[in-house]
Amino acid sequence: NSGYRHIALNRLGIAEIVEGVRDRRFTASDVLESCLQRVDDRDGDVHAWRSLARDEAQRAAREVRRDGPLAGVPFGVKDILDTADLPTEMGARCYRHHQPRFDAGAVAQLRLAGGIMLGKTATAEFAGTYPPDTVNPLDPGHTPGGSSSGSAAAVADFMVPFALGTQTGGSVLRPAAFCGVVGFKPTHGAYTSAGMKPAAHSLDTIGIIARTVSDVAIVHAALMNDQPARRNEGKLRIGLFRSHLWSDTEEAARAVVERTAAALSAAGAVVEEVPTPSGFEQINTHRATINAYERARGLASEWERAAPTISQSMLDICERGFAITGDEYFVARKIVDKFRIETDSILEAFDLLLTPTTPGEAPEGLASTGDPKLQELWTMLHLPSITVPAGTGPHGLPLGIQLVGRRYGDADLLAGAGWVSQVIEQTG
Amino acid sequence: NSGYRHIALNRLGIAEIVEGVRDRRFTASDVLESCLQRVDDRDGDVHAWRSLARDEAQRAAREVRRDGPLAGVPFGVKDILDTADLPTEMGARCYRHHQPRFDAGAVAQLRLAGGIMLGKTATAEFAGTYPPDTVNPLDPGHTPGGSSSGSAAAVADFMVPFALGTQTGGSVLRPAAFCGVVGFKPTHGAYTSAGMKPAAHSLDTIGIIARTVSDVAIVHAALMNDQPARRNEGKLRIGLFRSHLWSDTEEAARAVVERTAAALSAAGAVVEEVPTPSGFEQINTHRATINAYERARGLASEWERAAPTISQSMLDICERGFAITGDEYFVARKIVDKFRIETDSILEAFDLLLTPTTPGEAPEGLASTGDPKLQELWTMLHLPSITVPAGTGPHGLPLGIQLVGRRYGDADLLAGAGWVSQVIEQTG
Repeated sequence: NSGYRHIALNRLGIAEIVEGVRDRRFTASDVLESCLQRVDDRDGDVHAWRSLARDEAQRAAREVRRDGPLAGVPFGVKDILDTADLPTEMGARCYRHHQPRFDAGAVAQLRLAGGIMLGKTATAEFAGTYPPDTVNPLDPGHTPGGSSSGSAAAVADFMVPFALGTQTGGSVLRPAAFCGVVGFKPTHGAYTSAGMKPAAHSLDTIGIIARTVSDVAIVHAALMNDQPARRNEGKLRIGLFRSHLWSDTEEAARAVVERTAAALSAAGAVVEEVPTPSGFEQINTHRATINAYERARGLASEWERAAPTISQSMLDICERGFAITGDEYFVARKIVDKFRIETDSILEAFDLLLTPTTPGEAPEGLASTGDPKLQELWTMLHLPSITVPAGTGPHGLPLGIQLVGRRYGDADLLAGAGWVSQVIEQTG
Repeated sequence: NSGYRHIALNRLGIAEIVEGVRDRRFTASDVLESCLQRVDDRDGDVHAWRSLARDEAQRAAREVRRDGPLAGVPFGVKDILDTADLPTEMGARCYRHHQPRFDAGAVAQLRLAGGIMLGKTATAEFAGTYPPDTVNPLDPGHTPGGSSSGSAAAVADFMVPFALGTQTGGSVLRPAAFCGVVGFKPTHGAYTSAGMKPAAHSLDTIGIIARTVSDVAIVHAALMNDQPARRNEGKLRIGLFRSHLWSDTEEAARAVVERTAAALSAAGAVVEEVPTPSGFEQINTHRATINAYERARGLASEWERAAPTISQSMLDICERGFAITGDEYFVARKIVDKFRIETDSILEAFDLLLTPTTPGEAPEGLASTGDPKLQELWTMLHLPSITVPAGTGPHGLPLGIQLVGRRYGDADLLAGAGWVSQVIEQTG
């Protein structure tokens, strides 16, 4: 039954696809058709995709070199990243039908590795907070999170094994957590920013959304030119970092963190509480300054030429940003630099930190993509972070736990997160 | 005599233009026509410009708001930055006739401040080393430097009072020094990178080329939303930093540094030798690693789709870059991060460092844009740096001295550089 077979292929992990294509158990075209079938069946409800490169993907699947690290693996691209064969509309009316000449560097790298670019996924306007019409595939009455809304929904709904997102506050980890999948943001600047529309240039990073940590590790390795991190089997030193936001977090979100900490400890990790550094709560305030200052300047041309097409919420951020002086901006950056040095030294004593990803489950409705405060701390600190599904909340929707690694310790974080996710599954 | 008047206006500094336009001594259109006349007279020889927005600039000049900090000031934009009214060709065949929809953020900011975008200036291919046909306006047999070749030549030849460049190694300061003008690179990330084609994303910065330090300070203040730095009149503590490259520097370049140090000391500054930190020479090596790694990934799409249109030298860098592993790249970044912390602490004892800009005058011929090693140290360290004309060499071509400020101390650096440049002129 070809229909059944296609549904099965769209649920495979990346390593299984690559091995299957390499060993000719199925073709890249079989995998692609299975994913396209899933999109056709479901996207009328989910609205994860803005456009599909159907013909181009089919051609690429037929011609795929079977020796690439992502041979035959379909992927989605947040519509804030340039693509040579599809428009890049940035969730913004003033970019309708905007067609770049080349791919973003990271998209081209994935193609060179054998990946099949399937289409563009819906993004909040300019990777901000004004949401697309994407719904949470687990409950269409709830937001999928954002701004990488379509990337998380498409991966969670088995339309594609992985997708690229971008994170300036919490735009990769939050939607991944809300949709019950894995979201990873590397050390700041690990991946090229070429062909990515900046939101706030000192904070933005491309990130990866996939269904397992090991799938994320394969994509990360392809982008970095490394071998994929293997799951860590050793005795991890884990810092339980509740942060100043612990009391603002819902009971269920706190419970998954504590349950995970207990399970990891029982499985052999050394888990130790990390006191919140003095003044750490300022990071959210300084982040707001830096974000508004940089966003206003990054959108200065759209603001000058196309303001009536921009959402009021984004115009408000630009207004605030233009009013901030350079002196105020530099003060915020200086303070955050100091926190970076301080968290680097905290992380000398730990392999990774364990902390909540979000204050709770995906909120009801589509108007808000949820609260970025818990994710944006680590974006601001330029540290690699990943969310791993760790349970459900009172509405039966997923909750993640966030793991934070050392600067440039992305591979170690992925190795550790692989083990953590295994422990969570076994404890389940 | 209107011709004479136009020639005079194109030689004015920024403050004089802004005041003259505000006080109706002349109009923005008068200034623009004078600059356009100079371009028409000279650019057949100099080749500084890739394209001119004549009509659009004339309209903008007629409609200029006379209260902007750059009211009526024409400027040029390196053709690596997006412009809504002119193609952005990046000195690369595969971007011929490429027309962005919006301006780079910094370009839009300058327009919002009252600046008149006159046209696009020639750049080395992808802001690298493959040169455009621009000549040094002081001697057409010599390179103007690069990669911001056209920006430096246009400013030096009085075609425009300032121009934007970008610097990844030494692409703003070197051409400015070779053409005898002032070139400034701010603290990394001070200006938005939106609409700038990345060369190496962790190193790139937009910079400013103008004929005086005070002109640079006005443009910098407009981009930052600050008041322009005033010339420092106090007793500066200046570190004379010869670096490991001192012995590779020509006698004339060493002489202008030593003569400047003596003049500053005589004028009341405390000048003290700074020993080169141990291992400092590694920065150039690690910079080569980071540059090649990031360039390859930033150009991955052009490399995949348009390799035959790219220069062999850039293809070679991409090949080298693709062969570097993520582990090697992160090691280089970690080491450079340590040097950043070390130079930050050196700069606690000084207001600024004094060091050579280039090893000598502009080389003969157009094949090479010159040696970036002395400029790239400070780009790599993310510190603000500026070159100020300080004399001439054996061929009668200009030599600059390089001043380096504290991270986020851009305004202080400009204030200090204003004083240094005054001392040089008075000594001259």
